[in-house]
Amino acid sequence: VRTLDPPVAVAAARDGDRRALARLISAVEGRGDSARQIGRLLVPFTGHAHVVGITGAPGVGKSTTTSALIDGWRKQGRTVGVIAVDPSSPFTGGALLGDRVRMSDHSTDEGTFIRSMAARGQLGGLAAATPAAVRVLDACGFDLVVVETVGVGQSEIDIVRCADTVLILQAPGMGDRVQTAKAGLLEIGDVFAVNKSDRPGAAATNRELKSMVDSRPMAAGDWRPPVVAIVAVEATGIAELAEALEAHREFSLASGSLTARRLDRARSEILGLAAGGFQEAVSERAQLLAHLSEQVLAGRLDPDDAAHQVLTDVGVRTR
Amino acid sequence: VRTLDPPVAVAAARDGDRRALARLISAVEGRGDSARQIGRLLVPFTGHAHVVGITGAPGVGKSTTTSALIDGWRKQGRTVGVIAVDPSSPFTGGALLGDRVRMSDHSTDEGTFIRSMAARGQLGGLAAATPAAVRVLDACGFDLVVVETVGVGQSEIDIVRCADTVLILQAPGMGDRVQTAKAGLLEIGDVFAVNKSDRPGAAATNRELKSMVDSRPMAAGDWRPPVVAIVAVEATGIAELAEALEAHREFSLASGSLTARRLDRARSEILGLAAGGFQEAVSERAQLLAHLSEQVLAGRLDPDDAAHQVLTDVGVRTR
Repeated sequence: VRTLDPPVAVAAARDGDRRALARLISAVEGRGDSARQIGRLLVPFTGHAHVVGITGAPGVGKSTTTSALIDGWRKQGRTVGVIAVDPSSPFTGGALLGDRVRMSDHSTDEGTFIRSMAARGQLGGLAAATPAAVRVLDACGFDLVVVETVGVGQSEIDIVRCADTVLILQAPGMGDRVQTAKAGLLEIGDVFAVNKSDRPGAAATNRELKSMVDSRPMAAGDWRPPVVAIVAVEATGIAELAEALEAHREFSLASGSLTARRLDRARSEILGLAAGGFQEAVSERAQLLAHLSEQVLAGRLDPDDAAHQVLTDVGVRTR
Repeated sequence: VRTLDPPVAVAAARDGDRRALARLISAVEGRGDSARQIGRLLVPFTGHAHVVGITGAPGVGKSTTTSALIDGWRKQGRTVGVIAVDPSSPFTGGALLGDRVRMSDHSTDEGTFIRSMAARGQLGGLAAATPAAVRVLDACGFDLVVVETVGVGQSEIDIVRCADTVLILQAPGMGDRVQTAKAGLLEIGDVFAVNKSDRPGAAATNRELKSMVDSRPMAAGDWRPPVVAIVAVEATGIAELAEALEAHREFSLASGSLTARRLDRARSEILGLAAGGFQEAVSERAQLLAHLSEQVLAGRLDPDDAAHQVLTDVGVRTR
């Protein structure tokens, strides 16, 4: 394996070299010194892609829908990069990998690039790696960057929040609607789609979802999330769905909410990376931590006071 | 409302005053200056209670089982404090609150104290507040402290990990077993129980759970987690379950694994509190963060470099 030369790889990837692109993503996932250098080289070219987050409960048809959307975008001549994130624990994930394979219809297409990312122990790491990977695709000129993940918890919400437009998928059936509410997906959706709309109960799901979305607290001039009925396997409703995503993009640009959201995203990312740096500095103080833990266990020190000692040692200036 | 006088409240709570105890828990949840003072006053009295964590998927009968265990412990003359943690988002949680009400049979009993804790926006806050609340009950002389929470994700695992002994509940049905594996509960259980063991499929669930538990990587001399069949509503198997929990306690004491686990717990708690202190220091730098976010958005600064500037400003000494 040749060592990665960041300026050469960045130039090659921006020129369409897919292997260079794949290596850049691996490098920014790895978070070494070359990741920093790559970040610096790429950041001037970022900000042009429409970043779309797609999530929903397992089985609603995320990959099929993503695949159908890609078909539509490609027919319009637009290029698409996909980051498929699987944050589940190592010994599940079989179903998701199967879904990924279906998306590989697009793997021979020049205008599409699909990348899977799996959790390697740390969820925080994954939530941090996703925006970095998105930035690589953005800087390499993809018109759309899709971040797809299973909507089951806070970590997935964190992942999908790095998007300009969040699409929440549903399917007919009581369970899914409850899951969506429980997982907090209702609050973060900009566009909703009910997949498998040819199935019994689809109209009811659609109606209930609409009423749930409409009951979100909303100010005058806010974006009103549409609910689109689709049958992803037949590409039914996909054109309308793509239009709804585009309409949200245009609304966000015109209203200034895109800039606000991206500022917020940048802020979260900086905070996350800073927290990571702090954790690193703390973990270098293994002896101090062992000593303080023993003191707490012996009843000689309160954990709060122990934490204060750690902060002081690392250099953080507290009140 | 009278202001809390920490030394007076601590003395009263340790003397059996339940209102003082409740106020102490509220104070340590609040994390103000009085929380620190209370922590310092209580820490010399901690370390005696057997802390039992109870978790499992929704509907397996956590509250019923906890209730049956309490009955058994009370008959042995042992006192029990319960922290029931509900980390779900504000607009779910109905079912859990209903479960809580059932536990209130014990609310008139002098030897039992039950406290519910709900998420208030921040999961990190809840994971931090739980061990503090456990410490209050421990220092106030409860023989057993139970931490009960729904087993659905990483945050719940973090919560239940503050226990000396972790009990994972299951019920007959394929879904639950898969959920348990998915949620990572299999790895953290010290004792497993299959509730509703009079239902069809219970024997199969029991058998499969045993084989899953037995397939955990295990060294010679490690604790081998038992799987106990129970019917919590009829108190069937509850004595055996209590014995299994006690056996784990005795094994942990004798083998030294209790001390190792508690050291690890103290370390995690210190780290969590230190991370909280760092976040606080960072959030005081709103202007710097706004400026850096704008620079990132404009493509003039890489987020990694922005994070480095934050760390430097807060005072963290990095490489």
